[in-house]
Amino acid sequence: AKGVKAVQFFTSGFGETGTEEGRKLEAEICDLARGGGLRLIGPNCMGVYSPKVGLSYAPDYPRESGPVAFICQSGGNAIYFVRYAVQRGIRFSKVVSFGNAADINESELLEYLAADSETEIIAAYIEGVKDGKRFSQALKTAAAAKPVIIMKGGCTEAGAKAVASHTGVLAGSAQIWDGLLRQSGVISVSSLEELADILVTFLYLPVPSGWRLGCIDVGGGAAVVATDKYVSCGFVLQPLPPEVRQKLRQLVSTEAGISLNNPVDLAAQFYTPAVYPVVKTLADYNGVDMLIFHLPLGIMPPFASFPEEYASAILDNAIRAQEETSKPMAVVIDQITTGASLETAITCQQKCHQVGIPVYFAIDSAAKAISRFLHYHENRARLAGCQPQS
Amino acid sequence: AKGVKAVQFFTSGFGETGTEEGRKLEAEICDLARGGGLRLIGPNCMGVYSPKVGLSYAPDYPRESGPVAFICQSGGNAIYFVRYAVQRGIRFSKVVSFGNAADINESELLEYLAADSETEIIAAYIEGVKDGKRFSQALKTAAAAKPVIIMKGGCTEAGAKAVASHTGVLAGSAQIWDGLLRQSGVISVSSLEELADILVTFLYLPVPSGWRLGCIDVGGGAAVVATDKYVSCGFVLQPLPPEVRQKLRQLVSTEAGISLNNPVDLAAQFYTPAVYPVVKTLADYNGVDMLIFHLPLGIMPPFASFPEEYASAILDNAIRAQEETSKPMAVVIDQITTGASLETAITCQQKCHQVGIPVYFAIDSAAKAISRFLHYHENRARLAGCQPQS
Repeated sequence: AKGVKAVQFFTSGFGETGTEEGRKLEAEICDLARGGGLRLIGPNCMGVYSPKVGLSYAPDYPRESGPVAFICQSGGNAIYFVRYAVQRGIRFSKVVSFGNAADINESELLEYLAADSETEIIAAYIEGVKDGKRFSQALKTAAAAKPVIIMKGGCTEAGAKAVASHTGVLAGSAQIWDGLLRQSGVISVSSLEELADILVTFLYLPVPSGWRLGCIDVGGGAAVVATDKYVSCGFVLQPLPPEVRQKLRQLVSTEAGISLNNPVDLAAQFYTPAVYPVVKTLADYNGVDMLIFHLPLGIMPPFASFPEEYASAILDNAIRAQEETSKPMAVVIDQITTGASLETAITCQQKCHQVGIPVYFAIDSAAKAISRFLHYHENRARLAGCQPQS
Repeated sequence: AKGVKAVQFFTSGFGETGTEEGRKLEAEICDLARGGGLRLIGPNCMGVYSPKVGLSYAPDYPRESGPVAFICQSGGNAIYFVRYAVQRGIRFSKVVSFGNAADINESELLEYLAADSETEIIAAYIEGVKDGKRFSQALKTAAAAKPVIIMKGGCTEAGAKAVASHTGVLAGSAQIWDGLLRQSGVISVSSLEELADILVTFLYLPVPSGWRLGCIDVGGGAAVVATDKYVSCGFVLQPLPPEVRQKLRQLVSTEAGISLNNPVDLAAQFYTPAVYPVVKTLADYNGVDMLIFHLPLGIMPPFASFPEEYASAILDNAIRAQEETSKPMAVVIDQITTGASLETAITCQQKCHQVGIPVYFAIDSAAKAISRFLHYHENRARLAGCQPQS
């Protein structure tokens, strides 16, 4: 009667209760809405966060927009994920927590976002769908238009039961979901943190031309652990040729404790301006396709009580070297043990993101996300009929 | 000449350089030491942290002792791991960073710690060994005496190369290591953070009688994700029987948004004293072998700016219920997005550890560590000739 066009239905107690009464009530509100030309989001959801129009379901979300859309069947996951993603340097075009999907559902949202000019990347947390055929079509359309990354909740039998009592939908078999996501060219993730890692990669990393890494590290043990993780994800760490090693040798004042292999372990020289020419030398070397710079906060010497200025100064050297070359670079800031070191990591992250260097908070996270990113681009290139470089 | 009995050799530039000169120098200092009845730790290491005698290689380590020994071939990993472990509530009997292991090596350290009455659990980061036969024997002796948890660095070919230039030892094949660790009854981990998770479990969790979990959660999406992770690690989440559900129903003021299945999703009731009787009811139910209480910091409502008091009050309810029963319980505090929330998690963790409730900072970490712990005890029971309960 008032001409309202849409309602976001926060209230729960409908289809997800599993009772006849809940299902009936949900059908009734849908009928009422349809009769009045009204669209429904929910019930049992948080609704919409759209920074551009000033709409939000949480008081602490930024007013700044970004290129990522997120649709989420869970209200709690929608609240948390935006908070977490914001700290990771991700900004959103539109976020929709759609709960029971009684009227507007995941398929319609995907169709909308595929065509939305404000959205460059689509992320989703989905527990189940009601119309598999439409969903499959919407997924293919969306994934053909832009990167789509999906976390599927309820992959196990017990998880599917939890889904039934959460949003009242059918979780479906894990195998069918796997196949569907793969065939559609969708990137599938198994946690919300992994989802953020992949978004950071798409937002900040230029596409490297291949899998050959050049790594800069501090500490031999850290270099060993990092190497194992990168190689396990498909990256190649080749020894540096004599001429590059020779050049590096001239840049460091001593060789004791230092390893001029790949990873380059700078040991105590990590805390000196030597970082700049070392990174530059590696970036200039055409035998590596991208660099990963490792900044572990947990092994800093006695000045560990002022980590921020030290960490920041080290990073400045690395950033300067990267900016003077065109080599894609990622930074891993890890070994975060205290609130202060987490804040340091977040501050340092902003500095990197501003110049197009993605930041991760664990070696594992970087290795997994960047490898998924490379596979994604290889597949796209293959589909486009041209072989990727490698 | 001065009667000194042992030297810890911080300096690097010996065998790990890969040069003839380095190797010769290392052999020379060993000969000199042996000639004078002197034992060497290192070179290329941090040496010893022994809180009891007031010896430390880092100024910020606690003076308080604990039951965990840690031996570490990497100085950097030794510095970081103790800092990280301390924040996770782990305290040490002895920590030895032994680097190139020119004289005192991992085998001798294992033999010593196996017999050390101040050490209840042995943890190690090892890159390679020189005498495989002695090591294998030392490992079996140690693992028969107490839990032994090992992280092997250099599991990949490139990682092994990084090991060679780090501590100059042979990394050995990953398959041989896997077999050796499994046969010896050693728990093998692939990161230092996973090592800490397992130590926390051994330190604080009473052995549950089986794999049946009772979970308490807030948020349907969080419950779905948690269920998937637990089940993937071998846990069983059975639906609660009608009589338990009936009892729970009387404890919560409304059912909208709440799910009285397993996980129990308390939704908004999570922030009320209802937590206490709900946890108590689940703990009293003999159909679950242990409880996991999930406290996600990232979905707190507008009072998110004061998370500490809220988180603490919620936990008090859960702890009180657990203390009144004998049911083993673990707490997962996750969704940590800011320095303040990490500090909140650390404070809340101390409260739990004091009463014998282990705390993890991710669902994944809890699921993996507790499942390894259960497998360990099942294997021990099997070796002792009696079948474990299940």
